[in-house]
Amino acid sequence: MSLDHTAEGFRFDRDTRVEKRADGEFAATLTDAWTTFTSHPNGGYVLGAALNALRQSLSQPDPLAVSAFFLRPAAAGQGLVRTEVVREGRRTATGQVVLEQDGKEIVRAIATYGDLTPDPSARVLTLDEPPNLPPVQDCAVPPEFDHAEGVGIAGSVEYRYPERPGWMDGRKDGRPYAEFWMRFADGREPDTHSLVSMVDFAPPAVLEIGEFTTITVELSVHVRARPAPGWVACRVFTKHVQGGLHEEDMEIWDSTGTLVAQCRQLAMLL
Amino acid sequence: MSLDHTAEGFRFDRDTRVEKRADGEFAATLTDAWTTFTSHPNGGYVLGAALNALRQSLSQPDPLAVSAFFLRPAAAGQGLVRTEVVREGRRTATGQVVLEQDGKEIVRAIATYGDLTPDPSARVLTLDEPPNLPPVQDCAVPPEFDHAEGVGIAGSVEYRYPERPGWMDGRKDGRPYAEFWMRFADGREPDTHSLVSMVDFAPPAVLEIGEFTTITVELSVHVRARPAPGWVACRVFTKHVQGGLHEEDMEIWDSTGTLVAQCRQLAMLL
Repeated sequence: MSLDHTAEGFRFDRDTRVEKRADGEFAATLTDAWTTFTSHPNGGYVLGAALNALRQSLSQPDPLAVSAFFLRPAAAGQGLVRTEVVREGRRTATGQVVLEQDGKEIVRAIATYGDLTPDPSARVLTLDEPPNLPPVQDCAVPPEFDHAEGVGIAGSVEYRYPERPGWMDGRKDGRPYAEFWMRFADGREPDTHSLVSMVDFAPPAVLEIGEFTTITVELSVHVRARPAPGWVACRVFTKHVQGGLHEEDMEIWDSTGTLVAQCRQLAMLL
Repeated sequence: MSLDHTAEGFRFDRDTRVEKRADGEFAATLTDAWTTFTSHPNGGYVLGAALNALRQSLSQPDPLAVSAFFLRPAAAGQGLVRTEVVREGRRTATGQVVLEQDGKEIVRAIATYGDLTPDPSARVLTLDEPPNLPPVQDCAVPPEFDHAEGVGIAGSVEYRYPERPGWMDGRKDGRPYAEFWMRFADGREPDTHSLVSMVDFAPPAVLEIGEFTTITVELSVHVRARPAPGWVACRVFTKHVQGGLHEEDMEIWDSTGTLVAQCRQLAMLL
């Protein structure tokens, strides 16, 4: 697996590339570089490819709110992306996108884009703290995930935890809460587009309580600012498991301590 | 304004009623009984009418995850609702709905339905507390909202706060966090369908910091259990205001102390 990007750009950009076939119709090629331990491509990555098509049709530069419904597991290989512009307004533009494989819908999403150019005159109120993490160089775990053969995302994304998560050693008695650093392994910097995918890159918080088979029903992400370069600090947690369902919250804060994305998923235990 | 429901059922059910015109096409009539201080019908109410059409086409009984994008303000009067079944699965059914007025989209939503019949064998983990509220009879504020003439929702929904919110007296130095009781004024009990609307019935938390003109971009709600009868306990809060945007979180807990709905909105300050 080469991380060389000099010839072809960064892996995330290559692997979410789409080719226009007709108005509102694009071809995507999902790769196996983003598979999770389920062996399917990560949902955030698949959504990234879909949005890469949609954004070409919208006048605004940054995704503000994206809601994605995951209908079937994706597979590495060809996909067809259908886009629809729903509304072009003065401050926002809204569109819809469907990614299909073999004629079946994999993910359907609606997204509103806007302009997150920093506005120094805008009010700022922050009633929460960034993740309380030691410097990246003091977070040695994991240099890579154990038993990560076949888990493509473990090669494409780097994670740094302050302590070794219990689930890595088969423990099930933990707290479904984690803070960690994350970045693309090939040095691609975060931006508002990749944040929409990165909010789904965390190992699920419920791993800590022994729940290993969970599938996402819906993922809703709000991008709150353009991220500064560097590692992003993440917080992932679950507060409620009931009726075979749990939510998973994910926050991403940039290297300057600004909240840049908030995400909540509803997931189903199998 | 009559709250009599003996002849025609409860107001929420009457006012979200839809009439089928063709496959995937329904007529709705939005009323002025749910207008907010903006004079437009509440978005949660409009979404309720749209979902009332969609649910007729889906095999599963309870909304699990709904994401709605609000494209234009609604007006009291006729609406056209278009529905689409996206996927019928074994445990879930997903559909999409658009409510239009005068040929323009007001709200577009995707929803996944499932079955929230209580399952005593399902794992329950609750790492949070219900709102810390005195009994309803000890929460006297407000018997009605001040200056609520023309605010239809203040007649259709009852609110009980433990203390008088600062915004009611024009204060802007508060904390964007509130806990309160809520119920339909005519005694309609909550169910999984009405919860999807009720998560949008709270006066915005940012009223406490002097922000009065905020419009919802996207609302995402997860229904987590069928609610017990009675008043519901609500928690509404905002932690991050930046770039002209803020999130608003809303939790609804039922009268037995069970979390029954979680909602997050992204809203734009005007």
